[in-house]
This record gives sequence, structure tokens and C-alpha cells, in this order.
Amino acid sequence: MKLYTSTRAPNPRRVLMFMAEKGIADITTVQIDLGKAEHRSEAFAQLNPMAQVPVLELPDGRTLAETRAICTYLEGMYPNPNLMGEDFEERAFIEMMDRRCELQLFLRIANCVRHTHPGLAPLEQPQFPDFGAAQGARVRETARWLDGVLADRDFLAGERFTIADITGFCALEFARGLMKFRPSGEGLTNLQAWRDRIAERPSARIV
Amino acid sequence: MKLYTSTRAPNPRRVLMFMAEKGIADITTVQIDLGKAEHRSEAFAQLNPMAQVPVLELPDGRTLAETRAICTYLEGMYPNPNLMGEDFEERAFIEMMDRRCELQLFLRIANCVRHTHPGLAPLEQPQFPDFGAAQGARVRETARWLDGVLADRDFLAGERFTIADITGFCALEFARGLMKFRPSGEGLTNLQAWRDRIAERPSARIV
Repeated sequence: MKLYTSTRAPNPRRVLMFMAEKGIADITTVQIDLGKAEHRSEAFAQLNPMAQVPVLELPDGRTLAETRAICTYLEGMYPNPNLMGEDFEERAFIEMMDRRCELQLFLRIANCVRHTHPGLAPLEQPQFPDFGAAQGARVRETARWLDGVLADRDFLAGERFTIADITGFCALEFARGLMKFRPSGEGLTNLQAWRDRIAERPSARIV
Repeated sequence: MKLYTSTRAPNPRRVLMFMAEKGIADITTVQIDLGKAEHRSEAFAQLNPMAQVPVLELPDGRTLAETRAICTYLEGMYPNPNLMGEDFEERAFIEMMDRRCELQLFLRIANCVRHTHPGLAPLEQPQFPDFGAAQGARVRETARWLDGVLADRDFLAGERFTIADITGFCALEFARGLMKFRPSGEGLTNLQAWRDRIAERPSARIV
């Protein structure tokens, strides 16, 4: 199989970290240069009409896009260690936290940086800086809530490392680079400690 | 079990339609009045700290939020008819389309109406009308893409009705009410025909 990816892009990083946690080593990666707008080429539109990385090309040639859908497929192909839930009940609770990390943290960070960062103007036309700044304030609200969640547990979705930790971690790393956001700078010591623990995992070093 | 819901709100509608398709009749519904800000009460924060409907209360008292996570749980409890995929491969492809309907259609509609509709100002403070209008243009792009997808198939994620059809349909109904958006008005005849076929299902009448 092939994974179309892009160095330093936050969604591909989620899939690469997911693969590293499972020790998946037999998927080739193909770099797509976002700076050269390769994701907007005719050839790439055949792989993903939404013009987004990552995309997984299956052995039969079909392509699967959407970060979490790719993880669902990989979880089925490489079941160990389990990262998305052993049964439907656990799957549902992990999905709840994964969605909160994605919709309330990751997407708000993306909105903030895409609408306020001059370097991302080519990706977001037109930019709405006031909207972006308001989304930045929402990022801080979610971070504060996560800090409370982590007051009495070590991982976001319960007692063990799951996909929700990957989504939350990659979101914070995205915010660290482009929003200069650090939980410790906001007094969020539980969230910072969690982030630092996750950063020590070998899977966190792949970008 | 109990489902905390709100009449005419688009996310609860997704879960109610999912339940109706499965013939689930043993879940009590509890109305939350968004107009009276009941979702922002202390009592509701115990059910869902994100202050959003729907929420499912399980037999053991735990609460599960996030529309799609609730559907994952219900799919496990009531497996027939299958709406989210029989095996991991089908689950992944259905999830890809479900996410496209949610992120590229539903969320853009929500952004458009929450930032432009005077009646929704209490839900979105501050509103950014220019951003909302730009999101409306993106809704039309996604609708055009979906119209092409439906040129050679009857359902969004393949050969049968799935959760992706529910997400797409509830998104379009939301846009019909608050954006006055109709696919036929944009020349999108495949999308309109699909919408009209889905609207004939008994599950589509529950709001």
C-alpha cells in the first residue's frame, strides 16, 4: 500500500503516528508538495477530489481519504495494539473523545492559523483574521477543558493510549508551531504534562 | 436508555433518523429547549460539558455525546439493518463519505447560518457575516461535487442506504430551512433527486 503524505502537515502526521504505534512498516510513503500545490493537480484529484492529504492507496488500487477513515482501515488490517476500541462500547467512547479533539481543538486551531497566518494565505482565500482570532480564543477554552479532564487520568480517552491521544497531540503540536501556543504558558499544567509524556513516545518523533 | 434531543436541531435529527431506520423504539427522548439555553445549564453540563445535543444516557448512567459516536454505540446494540459497514473495509469507506458530508457540507452550512442568520446570533457570539457568506459559497462547491458523485449511484456511499445518506440529507434539510438552499435551484438535478428519494423514507419525517 502507499500513503500520500506531506512532511509537517498535521493530518498526515496523525496517520504516520498511528502507523508507528502499530509498528506498520510495509506501507510506502509518497510526498506531496503542498507548497508547489501538488495536491491541487489533476493527477492528485484522481486520488482525492477534496485535494487533501493524507490518502491511502489500497492493494486493489482504490484510494481512501479522510484521516480517521484511513485509521479505521489500518486498525482492521493491523489490529495490534488496539487504538480505537476493542468492542463497540469502547469504540464509541474513544470516538467521542477523538471527535472532541478534532472538532473542538484541531479544527479550531486550523481555522485560527489558516485565517490569521500570512504564510497560510495561499491555502485560505480569502482570510478572515477576526474570525481566526476568535477561533484562537476557542482553542484556549478547549485546552482548559482538556486540562481538567487530565487532572485524574493519564490518557484522554481512559486508561490507555488511543487515537484520541494522537489527535489531541498532533493538534497541540500544530498550535505550538503556528500559534506559539503552549499549555504551560496558560497555566494548564496537566495538559502540558500529558503533552510532554506523549512527546516521549517514538511515534511522536515522526513528522 | 434516554436520548437528550431538541426538536428541529440538525444533529439530534441525525440520531433520530438513524434510530428510525433501525426501528429502535425503546429509547426515551428528553427535550432540551435551546431557545431557553437549557443546554447551557449546570445540570446539562453534567451530561455533556460541550453543551451540545444530542446526548445518550446509557443503562449504567454514563453519558455518550457526539452524534457519530452515539451512532457507533447504537450500531453495536442494534446491528440490523447495518448502516455503518459490515467489516472494517466497508466501515472505512462509509466513514470517508460520512466525514465528507459532515466536514465539507454540514459544518460549512452550520458556519454559514450561525454567522449570517440574525435568529442564530444568540448561539454564535460574535458573528462574522463575511466569513459566513464565504462558507455559503463552499457549501455550493461541495453540493456540486456530490451532484457528480450521484450521477452514477443511488446512495452516497455505494449500493445501499448508510449513515452517510443520513448526514448528507440532514445537512441539506438544515440548509433548506436556514439558507433557503435547494439543489434544483443550482441546477444540481442528481442531488435534488437523491434528496427527494431520501425524503420519502419514513425516517426522514421525524424532526
